Amino acid sequence: MGGIIEGRVLEVFEAIRGRRSVRSFLDRDVSQSQLERIIECGILAPSAGNIQPWEFIIIRSPERKRALARAALGQEFIEEAPIVIVVVADQARTARVYGKRGADLFSIQDTAAAIQNMLLAAHSMGLGTCWVGAFDEDEVSKVVKVGASLKPVAIIPVGYPRYYPAPIGRRPISKVMHEEVYSSKESQRR
Amino acid sequence: MGGIIEGRVLEVFEAIRGRRSVRSFLDRDVSQSQLERIIECGILAPSAGNIQPWEFIIIRSPERKRALARAALGQEFIEEAPIVIVVVADQARTARVYGKRGADLFSIQDTAAAIQNMLLAAHSMGLGTCWVGAFDEDEVSKVVKVGASLKPVAIIPVGYPRYYPAPIGRRPISKVMHEEVYSSKESQRR
Repeated sequence: MGGIIEGRVLEVFEAIRGRRSVRSFLDRDVSQSQLERIIECGILAPSAGNIQPWEFIIIRSPERKRALARAALGQEFIEEAPIVIVVVADQARTARVYGKRGADLFSIQDTAAAIQNMLLAAHSMGLGTCWVGAFDEDEVSKVVKVGASLKPVAIIPVGYPRYYPAPIGRRPISKVMHEEVYSSKESQRR
Repeated sequence: MGGIIEGRVLEVFEAIRGRRSVRSFLDRDVSQSQLERIIECGILAPSAGNIQPWEFIIIRSPERKRALARAALGQEFIEEAPIVIVVVADQARTARVYGKRGADLFSIQDTAAAIQNMLLAAHSMGLGTCWVGAFDEDEVSKVVKVGASLKPVAIIPVGYPRYYPAPIGRRPISKVMHEEVYSSKESQRR
């Protein structure tokens, strides 16, 4: 289980470092209390003006999971997960206070922060997740019956991982960290 | 210090639950190793296609911090922090693979996930942060000298908190969690 010890809660760095995008799940249920813990961590994310422009739709029906996998361009592993969470941004809610910047930027950032909390919470309980962003929004909206003012921003399958993928590479800190002003990677000395 | 015990690393739920938006900082430095730990946690966020469309500009100059505070509509607490991190999304980098959806959605989500990791990492080391999103993008771009293809998405002051604010309220899980399909809050029974 790749360093995951059940029954022990991971510390922050371990969780951040150990989280993977899991695309294969065991046939084993996620409990209601695990699910609620994940959502609780989501709603503890910060949001612009504390507007909390998020809604979470919990999918357990095999037919609906299949429809989501289709809407996600055939990513069939979505169907394997016992629970799939569709995260929706209520752009209008943020726009009422912050206008277009609120809709286009803040509501997307706020829901993304919630999602990241959820991925870490799930991982720290030994559960795997995958942040699926490649999907047809209109199709997903139809499947979970959200109106035009709500934007589906992610599909998150949640379940016990069949296996944890190996870590994938990252651009090194020396390439992405800049002192005082931006300098393109070529001229970076560190 | 609101439950923060220095020298001990927080577990995930504690960190998610205890993080606050800190807007007042002590005159006490953040070490280079703390800073690099924060950035390291940032770059461990997931990103669409592992493209990692993030750049982090570290500001220590008082003049530049003042300019950022001005660009952020006078949020003067930004100047109090020993370190300010400007997070930039390289929308073109993601667009090369994912087109407009990549630029408008994925690059914003990916940088937001990185930011959330950074806030949790900082908090778990006893540091305070605030995710500042209300600012004039063009002004910030000028201050940190990023070109038009790069979008500043957040200003993050980092430092030892003068105090931790009390928790602020959240919409309850019963209002934001939906079973199988979206139902407006009014018709929610839970």
